[in-house]
Amino acid sequence: MLSNHFQNGMETARFVWSRLPHSEEGELEGAGLLSSESNKNCAESLDYEVLENYAYREEQAQRGKLFVGYNVGVKWFFALLIGIGTGLAAVFINISVENFAGWKFALTFNIIQKSYLAGFLIYILINLALVFSSVYIITQFAPAAAGSGIPEIKGYLNGIDIPGILLFRTLIGKIFGSIGSVGGGLALGKEGPLVHTGACIASLLGQGGSTKYHLSSRWLQGFKSDRDRRDLVTCGCAAGVAAAFRAPVGGVLFALEEVTSWWRSQLMWRVFFTSAIVAVVVRAAMGWCKSGNCGHFGSGGFIIWDISDGQEDYSFEELLPMAVIGVIGGLLGALFNQLTIYVTRWRRNYLHKKGSRVKIYEACLISVITSVISFGLPLLRKCSPCPDSDPDSEIECPRAPGMYGNYVNFYCSKDKEYNDLATIFFNTQDDAIRNLFSAKTIHEFSTQSLLTFLVMFYTLAVVTFGTAVPAGQFVPGIMIGSTYGRLVGIFTVNHYKKLNIEEGTYALLGAASFLGGSMRMTVSLCVIMVEITNNLKLLPLIMLVLLISKAVGDAFNEGLYEEQARLRGIPLLESRPKYEMRKMTAREACGNQKVLSLPRVVKVADVVSILRCNKHNGFPVIDHTRNGEPLVIGIMLRSHLLVLLQSKIDFQHSPLPCDPKGGSRAIRFTIFSAN
Amino acid sequence: MLSNHFQNGMETARFVWSRLPHSEEGELEGAGLLSSESNKNCAESLDYEVLENYAYREEQAQRGKLFVGYNVGVKWFFALLIGIGTGLAAVFINISVENFAGWKFALTFNIIQKSYLAGFLIYILINLALVFSSVYIITQFAPAAAGSGIPEIKGYLNGIDIPGILLFRTLIGKIFGSIGSVGGGLALGKEGPLVHTGACIASLLGQGGSTKYHLSSRWLQGFKSDRDRRDLVTCGCAAGVAAAFRAPVGGVLFALEEVTSWWRSQLMWRVFFTSAIVAVVVRAAMGWCKSGNCGHFGSGGFIIWDISDGQEDYSFEELLPMAVIGVIGGLLGALFNQLTIYVTRWRRNYLHKKGSRVKIYEACLISVITSVISFGLPLLRKCSPCPDSDPDSEIECPRAPGMYGNYVNFYCSKDKEYNDLATIFFNTQDDAIRNLFSAKTIHEFSTQSLLTFLVMFYTLAVVTFGTAVPAGQFVPGIMIGSTYGRLVGIFTVNHYKKLNIEEGTYALLGAASFLGGSMRMTVSLCVIMVEITNNLKLLPLIMLVLLISKAVGDAFNEGLYEEQARLRGIPLLESRPKYEMRKMTAREACGNQKVLSLPRVVKVADVVSILRCNKHNGFPVIDHTRNGEPLVIGIMLRSHLLVLLQSKIDFQHSPLPCDPKGGSRAIRFTIFSAN
Repeated sequence: MLSNHFQNGMETARFVWSRLPHSEEGELEGAGLLSSESNKNCAESLDYEVLENYAYREEQAQRGKLFVGYNVGVKWFFALLIGIGTGLAAVFINISVENFAGWKFALTFNIIQKSYLAGFLIYILINLALVFSSVYIITQFAPAAAGSGIPEIKGYLNGIDIPGILLFRTLIGKIFGSIGSVGGGLALGKEGPLVHTGACIASLLGQGGSTKYHLSSRWLQGFKSDRDRRDLVTCGCAAGVAAAFRAPVGGVLFALEEVTSWWRSQLMWRVFFTSAIVAVVVRAAMGWCKSGNCGHFGSGGFIIWDISDGQEDYSFEELLPMAVIGVIGGLLGALFNQLTIYVTRWRRNYLHKKGSRVKIYEACLISVITSVISFGLPLLRKCSPCPDSDPDSEIECPRAPGMYGNYVNFYCSKDKEYNDLATIFFNTQDDAIRNLFSAKTIHEFSTQSLLTFLVMFYTLAVVTFGTAVPAGQFVPGIMIGSTYGRLVGIFTVNHYKKLNIEEGTYALLGAASFLGGSMRMTVSLCVIMVEITNNLKLLPLIMLVLLISKAVGDAFNEGLYEEQARLRGIPLLESRPKYEMRKMTAREACGNQKVLSLPRVVKVADVVSILRCNKHNGFPVIDHTRNGEPLVIGIMLRSHLLVLLQSKIDFQHSPLPCDPKGGSRAIRFTIFSAN
Repeated sequence: MLSNHFQNGMETARFVWSRLPHSEEGELEGAGLLSSESNKNCAESLDYEVLENYAYREEQAQRGKLFVGYNVGVKWFFALLIGIGTGLAAVFINISVENFAGWKFALTFNIIQKSYLAGFLIYILINLALVFSSVYIITQFAPAAAGSGIPEIKGYLNGIDIPGILLFRTLIGKIFGSIGSVGGGLALGKEGPLVHTGACIASLLGQGGSTKYHLSSRWLQGFKSDRDRRDLVTCGCAAGVAAAFRAPVGGVLFALEEVTSWWRSQLMWRVFFTSAIVAVVVRAAMGWCKSGNCGHFGSGGFIIWDISDGQEDYSFEELLPMAVIGVIGGLLGALFNQLTIYVTRWRRNYLHKKGSRVKIYEACLISVITSVISFGLPLLRKCSPCPDSDPDSEIECPRAPGMYGNYVNFYCSKDKEYNDLATIFFNTQDDAIRNLFSAKTIHEFSTQSLLTFLVMFYTLAVVTFGTAVPAGQFVPGIMIGSTYGRLVGIFTVNHYKKLNIEEGTYALLGAASFLGGSMRMTVSLCVIMVEITNNLKLLPLIMLVLLISKAVGDAFNEGLYEEQARLRGIPLLESRPKYEMRKMTAREACGNQKVLSLPRVVKVADVVSILRCNKHNGFPVIDHTRNGEPLVIGIMLRSHLLVLLQSKIDFQHSPLPCDPKGGSRAIRFTIFSAN
């Protein structure tokens, strides 16, 4: 029926070496009995490299230099578009979140001047509304947009295609969902979702737009091979990190270290370009917003938590408390990973089975609890008197209501007092981190407040993880880490009174250690931490803390993303085989499953029979040596066989040995109608 | 004679899968006629991965978990040692260079208070003595230590072993040679040699020390496979960059991007650790030196050219001049590469053939010319009056004699004058760069002086490149780039008078653009530039300038290291095949050379005959399918055959068909006497 598509040998060739594109509308379902049915719900594997065969080489040989040049041009143009798109998405999310949150806190502060109860209720209601909008979008419209998305992207770049993760509606769900969930004050961040957003933008560009929503453009559909698509998604990931943390180099390294299992050195250059574009776009938008066009957004500068005026130097006595921070980070990070595994498993087995209504209730309940804790606990805390103001530092105490900064006056009886718990708890996470990192604020936070916050926020982060909203773990991780870092800092300042130590430095190291202990990243995390704080002098310290926390964490379990990927059934290929696998042969790995192989020359009927009898997606082709030993000479994919069968001959009248119902119609593949 | 070594099957196995170690004493020469003679003078290829064969798998299977753990422990211990060793080497080189140079300039300044002629002569003589010591060490003792060493290391990590580059005496020659050449004021840097130094330290550790100088330790000789050694050398490279620029993350990225063709993600973690150790060691040494123990060293702080107090922001009008800098960088960089090719080729074909005496004369002549230019040209330059002093900036004009800083009073008639050409020319390169990068010194340098300096220094850098001294291209590149960057900066400041523009920012961008245009690095260079200047805010600008300059440079020729590697006959494997090679088959690539293959079962006499008849190092093993088609089922290396022949049987009495002289003694291999 569509065989006229294949009159042209070139077209056929292109199909034979490319993978069948993953369609978002499920149109491939018509491919019927011959295509493997196991593909529908679970992961499908992608090709690591372009499949080289005669057809591919033939096509490559026919390509002129012009075509190669055009292809390179398109790739760079796409890198540019990904950069611009991801940058704009990040700006949009940031503007929305900061304005929702800023408005929420301003309103609440206004109301509590009159009545704390009314303020409390308003605060809970606004949060609830925002979280509800987020969870509603996710459950009703884009279920694949829940969570951070990084494990899925990691899986994709590792060679596993999970249906639904790179669709247009996932993109939309991710953007609007994370505005609601982050604006609603839950213990989660917008950074992970931004990585997923970048990847979605990249993937949609690679497909030439969304076919379902008629946004596709045929002339952009140049990327047929898995490798080219994976390259684009890699660019998208880097762009996401670059946009989320305003850390362009960190983005490149994140894509390199954490995400791509299959890095090609040519790619680095292009990923770098994308990150640079993101930085320029975000910076330009922030410059435009400085004039007050975007409300609260853009006031903080390009560096998110600038501590370049903090501690300049360190002495060797400090290495011990810093090592302690590393160990704590490793332990708490590993514990976090372990707890989230239990919570996710419990949720999947008992809670989320009951449908999307339960997911909505759950998210709303967590929102209410979070609001109650973050408003209620500071109420119970006694206020402290303001420290003697230092004429050098420009930090006001208490700060003016509705402004950002340290020293919040919240439920205090006197004017010259501040509530240290409210300074971190009743605040946006960005501001809380800024306060924790801040220099020249020694002993602003009491040990008791920090401990309370640590325990409560840690619990909230674990419980929130896995709800049906877009959720990143970076910012919660930084919050947790900087809290215990500052705790250690307090002890260090008390112990080494002579040294010029800033508690904010320890908060930063704590943040790095917790992220290292949980996510187990190294170079990229290090660069991201430096880029978001703008203090290069602490780099060696961050490196050492990360080394310790990763080593400690690795003793207990795997990284957060690896564990989550395993829970979701994404089979990540590790770079190094396990000890038990060193002696394993392919035969042992197969277990009871028999490998079906094809001989070098095979009858069409046999092929069809083999295809129908099993669900395998690849068939080794076997030849024999003279003394009868079998030798593998290549591999044939199911999809290739299907294309060959379809494009060559009409098999309507041949008998099918393996089809119990005997119908010959089943062979009229509709597989190419998607095109 | 040494066959008792091979009674143990395990030992044999280990030898069969490991490469024959490259010996520095040439003891392998005794391996005689059976080993390929072509190995002696030209490059030998290394294995990219561990060769998997039955013997290897057998050995792996016998290894317990304990042994695996021990192995990992040794690797990490080596990473630690490499970090400490490279850090100490860098500190030693820096202390020596800065003290020699500091003492030289202090002495000259003292003498020119009385007589400019006497000062001139003393200056020339000190430089000459230092350069002579360097070139003498190199020509007489360690010829492989000439040049930067990065092309050779790149080759090594790409799989090409060049004899002599990783020996103990190369290490010694590199350290002392670069002290002489950099201290002697030539237009070259110490950064490239430090990378080579790090690689040498790593390689020597991997061999368990230098066997020739009886510094070896048997229990450390755990690294038999090429892959493990290459990993160590990668760590060494990263350590070298980290030590040279005090840029730990830059080091990791340099090793990743520029040097290793074969990156394993497990390695990143270890390389990162090495870099962190280097940073801590260098920092500790600098802290110790701050108290005045090391003369001039350690006064500058950990960041080499700190410009964090420079320009904070940029506007869109500036993007045009910055793009211009990128284009200039690409053009001048590509020209530099091209000129150095001509100079190197000319030198090799006409000059260096005449022996090492000519090399010494050449280096001394260049030293005298450099001294004359750097002393003489500032004499011809008229002094400028000091600008009105700004109470905010702490920059003195003129600076106190013998101190570091801007505004040198050199051959000026009045007290309140300075000589802008002397400020950059009659100075150590580090200080010159610091002056060029400096903020709040608008119009310190006149257009005329900068142009003079640019032309002269560019010429000197081209001519100096390729002399027989250790020579890095980073610092000269930064000098050249920052000069024209500052030139563009002058025009920009004049053109956009309203904006708050610093010329130093443009100097930094110029430096980045020239390095990008010449070396064609991207991410690593970007991170290095940020780490040496401590100004993260300029990161997006550096990225864009690099993108432009690399793209412009790529239009003309390849990167400096690739070109130099090609000139030295190091066949670097590119990551992407050339356009012409897309259709090429192995048969066409072989040309007239016939591939000699082995059948699956072969007589010993035939093997010996094949080994003696040719110089091939590898032989494909061929089997045939039932219908007679040949199939490659593996590859056998000459070294493996030699080990097998030696360890199994004594062939003394068998005839050798291919040996014209017929002697049977030739087969008594002495190949293992090196052990």
